[in-house]
Amino acid sequence: MFFRVKETAFHCTPEKPDPVFARQLQEVLGGQWGEISVMLGYLMQGWNCRAPGKYKDMIMDIGTEEIGHVEMLATCIARLLEKSPVETQEGAAKDGLVGAVLGGAKIQDVILAGMNPHHAIVSGGGATASDANGNHWSAKYIVSSGNLLADFRFNVTAESQGRLQVARLYNLTDDPGVKKMLSYLLARDTMHQNQWLAAIRELEEEGFEETPCPSNFPQELENQEFNYVFLNHSEGTESAAGRWATGPSMDGKGEITYIDKPPALGPQQELGQVDPRLFGTPKAPLSAGERQLMFTKES
Amino acid sequence: MFFRVKETAFHCTPEKPDPVFARQLQEVLGGQWGEISVMLGYLMQGWNCRAPGKYKDMIMDIGTEEIGHVEMLATCIARLLEKSPVETQEGAAKDGLVGAVLGGAKIQDVILAGMNPHHAIVSGGGATASDANGNHWSAKYIVSSGNLLADFRFNVTAESQGRLQVARLYNLTDDPGVKKMLSYLLARDTMHQNQWLAAIRELEEEGFEETPCPSNFPQELENQEFNYVFLNHSEGTESAAGRWATGPSMDGKGEITYIDKPPALGPQQELGQVDPRLFGTPKAPLSAGERQLMFTKES
Amino acid sequence: MFFRVKETAFHCTPEKPDPVFARQLQEVLGGQWGEISVMLGYLMQGWNCRAPGKYKDMIMDIGTEEIGHVEMLATCIARLLEKSPVETQEGAAKDGLVGAVLGGAKIQDVILAGMNPHHAIVSGGGATASDANGNHWSAKYIVSSGNLLADFRFNVTAESQGRLQVARLYNLTDDPGVKKMLSYLLARDTMHQNQWLAAIRELEEEGFEETPCPSNFPQELENQEFNYVFLNHSEGTESAAGRWATGPSMDGKGEITYIDKPPALGPQQELGQVDPRLFGTPKAPLSAGERQLMFTKES
Amino acid sequence: MFFRVKETAFHCTPEKPDPVFARQLQEVLGGQWGEISVMLGYLMQGWNCRAPGKYKDMIMDIGTEEIGHVEMLATCIARLLEKSPVETQEGAAKDGLVGAVLGGAKIQDVILAGMNPHHAIVSGGGATASDANGNHWSAKYIVSSGNLLADFRFNVTAESQGRLQVARLYNLTDDPGVKKMLSYLLARDTMHQNQWLAAIRELEEEGFEETPCPSNFPQELENQEFNYVFLNHSEGTESAAGRWATGPSMDGKGEITYIDKPPALGPQQELGQVDPRLFGTPKAPLSAGERQLMFTKES
Amino acid sequence: MFFRVKETAFHCTPEKPDPVFARQLQEVLGGQWGEISVMLGYLMQGWNCRAPGKYKDMIMDIGTEEIGHVEMLATCIARLLEKSPVETQEGAAKDGLVGAVLGGAKIQDVILAGMNPHHAIVSGGGATASDANGNHWSAKYIVSSGNLLADFRFNVTAESQGRLQVARLYNLTDDPGVKKMLSYLLARDTMHQNQWLAAIRELEEEGFEETPCPSNFPQELENQEFNYVFLNHSEGTESAAGRWATGPSMDGKGEITYIDKPPALGPQQELGQVDPRLFGTPKAPLSAGERQLMFTKES
Amino acid sequence: MFFRVKETAFHCTPEKPDPVFARQLQEVLGGQWGEISVMLGYLMQGWNCRAPGKYKDMIMDIGTEEIGHVEMLATCIARLLEKSPVETQEGAAKDGLVGAVLGGAKIQDVILAGMNPHHAIVSGGGATASDANGNHWSAKYIVSSGNLLADFRFNVTAESQGRLQVARLYNLTDDPGVKKMLSYLLARDTMHQNQWLAAIRELEEEGFEETPCPSNFPQELENQEFNYVFLNHSEGTESAAGRWATGPSMDGKGEITYIDKPPALGPQQELGQVDPRLFGTPKAPLSAGERQLMFTKES
Repeated sequence: MFFRVKETAFHCTPEKPDPVFARQLQEVLGGQWGEISVMLGYLMQGWNCRAPGKYKDMIMDIGTEEIGHVEMLATCIARLLEKSPVETQEGAAKDGLVGAVLGGAKIQDVILAGMNPHHAIVSGGGATASDANGNHWSAKYIVSSGNLLADFRFNVTAESQGRLQVARLYNLTDDPGVKKMLSYLLARDTMHQNQWLAAIRELEEEGFEETPCPSNFPQELENQEFNYVFLNHSEGTESAAGRWATGPSMDGKGEITYIDKPPALGPQQELGQVDPRLFGTPKAPLSAGERQLMFTKES
Repeated sequence: MFFRVKETAFHCTPEKPDPVFARQLQEVLGGQWGEISVMLGYLMQGWNCRAPGKYKDMIMDIGTEEIGHVEMLATCIARLLEKSPVETQEGAAKDGLVGAVLGGAKIQDVILAGMNPHHAIVSGGGATASDANGNHWSAKYIVSSGNLLADFRFNVTAESQGRLQVARLYNLTDDPGVKKMLSYLLARDTMHQNQWLAAIRELEEEGFEETPCPSNFPQELENQEFNYVFLNHSEGTESAAGRWATGPSMDGKGEITYIDKPPALGPQQELGQVDPRLFGTPKAPLSAGERQLMFTKES
Repeated sequence: MFFRVKETAFHCTPEKPDPVFARQLQEVLGGQWGEISVMLGYLMQGWNCRAPGKYKDMIMDIGTEEIGHVEMLATCIARLLEKSPVETQEGAAKDGLVGAVLGGAKIQDVILAGMNPHHAIVSGGGATASDANGNHWSAKYIVSSGNLLADFRFNVTAESQGRLQVARLYNLTDDPGVKKMLSYLLARDTMHQNQWLAAIRELEEEGFEETPCPSNFPQELENQEFNYVFLNHSEGTESAAGRWATGPSMDGKGEITYIDKPPALGPQQELGQVDPRLFGTPKAPLSAGERQLMFTKES
Repeated sequence: MFFRVKETAFHCTPEKPDPVFARQLQEVLGGQWGEISVMLGYLMQGWNCRAPGKYKDMIMDIGTEEIGHVEMLATCIARLLEKSPVETQEGAAKDGLVGAVLGGAKIQDVILAGMNPHHAIVSGGGATASDANGNHWSAKYIVSSGNLLADFRFNVTAESQGRLQVARLYNLTDDPGVKKMLSYLLARDTMHQNQWLAAIRELEEEGFEETPCPSNFPQELENQEFNYVFLNHSEGTESAAGRWATGPSMDGKGEITYIDKPPALGPQQELGQVDPRLFGTPKAPLSAGERQLMFTKES
Repeated sequence: MFFRVKETAFHCTPEKPDPVFARQLQEVLGGQWGEISVMLGYLMQGWNCRAPGKYKDMIMDIGTEEIGHVEMLATCIARLLEKSPVETQEGAAKDGLVGAVLGGAKIQDVILAGMNPHHAIVSGGGATASDANGNHWSAKYIVSSGNLLADFRFNVTAESQGRLQVARLYNLTDDPGVKKMLSYLLARDTMHQNQWLAAIRELEEEGFEETPCPSNFPQELENQEFNYVFLNHSEGTESAAGRWATGPSMDGKGEITYIDKPPALGPQQELGQVDPRLFGTPKAPLSAGERQLMFTKES
Repeated sequence: MFFRVKETAFHCTPEKPDPVFARQLQEVLGGQWGEISVMLGYLMQGWNCRAPGKYKDMIMDIGTEEIGHVEMLATCIARLLEKSPVETQEGAAKDGLVGAVLGGAKIQDVILAGMNPHHAIVSGGGATASDANGNHWSAKYIVSSGNLLADFRFNVTAESQGRLQVARLYNLTDDPGVKKMLSYLLARDTMHQNQWLAAIRELEEEGFEETPCPSNFPQELENQEFNYVFLNHSEGTESAAGRWATGPSMDGKGEITYIDKPPALGPQQELGQVDPRLFGTPKAPLSAGERQLMFTKES
């Protein structure tokens, strides 16, 4: 069960409106790696978690923290779509960009400014649950597999991709208020990368899981001729130069070998027949008799 | 540029048809973590790669290998939807499930068998580019960020989630031909987990990247009060018991501290006004005069 | 069965081309609340309707009217993407924006103008079944539940959100021809709001349905401790000041009470085990013996 | 900013596992009208709200309550996918359905049982953020327009459609534990229907908004010949018999009239030309000269 | 502008309910190649059409006819979800499948019967705008390009795929009422294949368009070394045996040649650098100095 | 099984960066008719193919060729997002557009330039698997039906729509390097249109298939009153003037007739009842007794 306080987790007040940057900022709210993804992704992982309580509690802590991050970003975007205090004093002529559109004839000047049309037409100056291109957020972005190692690896990724995007956005604005908020989000992403890496370490040390994940599946059932072999699929062997092509495997359970020209081990890809009453193209044309036979009982 | 040989990379021939398992197997062909995802995901990462040649070549090797895995799974699914030779000899009464529907009146017996209706109506006994629930494959599943650490972490995840699903499917069938193919795919996922982990090690050792990712963003610009702090968001402190809540951070750059009751540091979440001509609900109702003013110039 | 006349329901001719506004106008053609949504939404409700004939006929009348609205908007958008007669006379230098791109070198000037690239590359100067951000129309936007009160409430919403968007678009253009069309659509949305509200009144007066919807479900089967209680979930009690927090309920069947600090009534959220052969993370690591046991019969 | 307690808002413990009903129950978790929709929909509306504090606080209270409902449903679904204590005692032969699949050879018996394959392969016995057909949750389901009347009408709809689905599910199970939870959700939906209707009343009484919504748009700018007219679009006049076809309009601002055979008021739907360099089919074939002209400067 | 009559275009009354077949039949209502696709696809093509009137009129005729086909299928599906008259007389024990669920305890028996859960929970016995797997209809299925040859080729495809699916469904039911309706739809698809092929012939004979489409683009601007060359991309030359590998081209403008081992004509695929401030992985690690330089002005 | 060489199939090097055109070019990489669609569409058709080897081999040849086209476009887009060598020499002041954003304060100048924000924030200067509006690629775009005539007709369409879009893009750029690549793609689309048309001819000549497709379905089972009849659905008879309305049918199996005013042949569209426990709106309100009866056994 959840409760809220009315204050935001951290400051999220831009110095002045900027509808163009509002569009960019949507990416880390409602994009593939945005805060809605980590919020709902972590909450689902936590609710589905069957591991000991400290894991579940930790996952839920971060998931709950992320609700507050969604709040901060939604608030910041809505403010980027407002008139600034200064502009309000100076009157209609210096309205924010939306005001400019509504107040005058030079529509194009503004719309072409790269504003998200949904911010005017659909949300009326509010944030939307979508990315910088207007794609609606989708649960296709998240995962909750029941296997914590698989999911924590996803979470490390999410915090890395997310921090990367926030870092890029940091360079796309010079508003000190926005930068202050992004600086906080960057810090939290740093912590969360560390936290999920620590959780992976803990899982391994407590004997829950290790590489290859899932480790409870007995490796003797996997094809042991191919589980530590690098198969070159290109002309030339540049790929033989890396750590991945030689030496002991990272899981400590094998020795990596490199095969330059891997043979095709299966037979020629060829299919048999399906029922002619599915009307697919068969190996040979049906004779008239065969065609008639197909429908005898129904004619 | 790409070429093909007509043989498949490995065996992918079930002993007998099984349209119900064909539906399940779609998950690792066209699902979120299926082979289409790794095929197209790795190819896009490779084509976009600006790192030294051995990285790009390695990524492309795996991406090209995955085209062959998509081929194996598509082939296997199509075969699971065929009549087996034996059944064909024994006549219509023992047809595969599709045949049973087409040949007799007991439609329900079969359709309820949990077959994917698209395998009959849409693809006519072929595989589809969709998951076990019939969701069409979507590029929302993949990523290519330009930052190899962020992407390799995603790739480790993909091989973990994928191996997990293959392991589950291994337990959902007892067809030796299918199990043989899955055993091969499990082995390749083991190798690929090792390979991406090795590539992460290489990236770090060569000085390209480290935690927090992206490491080229200067940490002094992130909020240093919060980058190594665990914020408890729940009643009780079970989450304090883990490695993530105490000790040196995993990146070796900080010391983790645990805050039991984190304060809200921002002000109350409250917005200003937007232009009334967007017809949002304002802080106070507009007077008749204000309403009229809005449209004077246009009436 | 349906027929058409070749005239449009109302005028939909802009005075001059405006590819930028064409993009905006797509929202009310193919967006969440656009005319395709009400067209197909109402038609599905009508075709699925089992209520007396006057309801079905009324729904179908509006659904059929909306086909004509889709036609008007598609036509208007296509015209906004044409050269106007005047411009054609004055020659290439004053072409519409599309012409400008094709006729000269200053591509960016125009594309950055915020035109939807699909209007040039995909539809070649025609409307598309998508919204102002290029999201393809989706049946996720509509509903037909079989319960007319539930659906008519959706329809009142659709006409409200739709009229809101048309009103915003009215302020984003100064083309008299476009404004004339929008003025007609605003009027029809006014009528349709009234009509669905009247239909709700009729449903209630004829005894079909009332609040809480569905009213045929016996309220004694719902938990009667919580059906007229406002549960505060925030620090502070600002929400206690509204009509929703006190007095007789709107359905006349209860008295609303306000609970400031609602207790959590369920136990701690904790799950049991699932089958270990799903390879989820369990409550405790499996022993080697347990692992082996899992696969005994198959090794 | 948000916090959680570890207890659930209400009981959500089924008496015994039922993977088939788990699939059905997904609809009210991750479907169009499920709890994720109201959770994220209300939160976005609240964060974007510019109306006086009591409105915002009320919206946020409900949005926060709904996080707890998502938690209850996710938990209940995960439990429906577990072995029951009784079954565990009685051993593998009486496992739940998932166990049956994994424990024996009769895969089809179970999979055809209508279980969602994602519950086995993807989530490993956990809930997913998708509906009863496996469609991933999408932000296409929600709205936050900035206009509270338009949005509250949507919210009344959501609580009606949601309660309708819960009522149907109540009849699709006979598990007392599940029925107890659904009985609670039905009660909360009753309250929430009343609450949003009360909020609409409050908005109207405080002068913020009324029908037609948005009421700040001056009706003299809409086409006043058509704003209170019912246009019959079918043969016959059954639709003339309802409240919607006659009498004073519901907003009290007009008198409804019924037009049996509405004329088409626009001209024949016909378009002009677009630039030939878009290669659309023109009104007449291009001559060879015209074709050549198109590319002169580039050849 | 559109009107309707209350009768359906043809009979669409099943003899008895069959909720399992209702699910299958959804494919040709709301699937990729279902009637909604041709209805909305043709209407969009017609509304966007700039060719002479007979083309536009013909397209609109078919598009309008298809609205009636959607009506027939929606009606048929709703009826397949009803009790039949006989069953009603015989009482609850012999209810249709939905009745069985609601009337008794053997829920699983029925739901696992492969019924679409949305038919019970979401639409309450009505059709939905989705396919046999519950995927919501999407405008991604349709096209309106402005070039009639390109679009008519799509339309021939749609009528072929659609007729193929109807033919398969014809074999999946033995209900005479349903077969009668499908027999009508098969006939209309036959006509429509002929009609679009005739329209292509007409376009070519009237000089509007020919292969290669678009034919107004001057072929001398395309690379004339490769426009009539078959490039073998596989080991072996089975593909050399077909009409596509030799002889005059189908458009009569070239002679096809077959290249067994096509060389790669471009250089090695390799990229340059992007701005380091995007934090991608560069060709070589940045030095500490370079890193610092990146942010000098901002620190 | 697949292999690659490191060279691209053809040149794909722009002379200078152009992030705005990079956005447009995405359409033919990841749009509905882009190269990913033909790549994955053809590969799926080939893997599912049961026709004689020359067909399968031919399909696979083209599918494999298309992997190389995806590579060329992804590479070209990535290069359009780079600094050109010249610009690099001339220093930061003349950076490409991305550099301009990152290097200076005039963010808007550039972003409004119509650049895809994902190229900066998400892919960091790489191509994405999406279209010009940022819609992620979806398997909804492709088909593999098992019937080669139906699929080859789709493939002719894909090559027509694709060539149309490439031709439009050819006119939207004046970069010689880009035009060189597009000229090659135009040529391959010309060949591929010819090739699929030749394959259709071959299928027909070898007796596999003909119009109406699927031709193995016996036409005597389709409704023979309506399979060669044009049904006018509009006022007026402009549509009677075309080849589609008169003369022998294109398949040579019938004579087309034109019906000006087609009657509705089915009865009035009206439904029966569904089970009241689904809470739909019935034909008449339930009495109190009926309501009570519904739940007797459960109260």
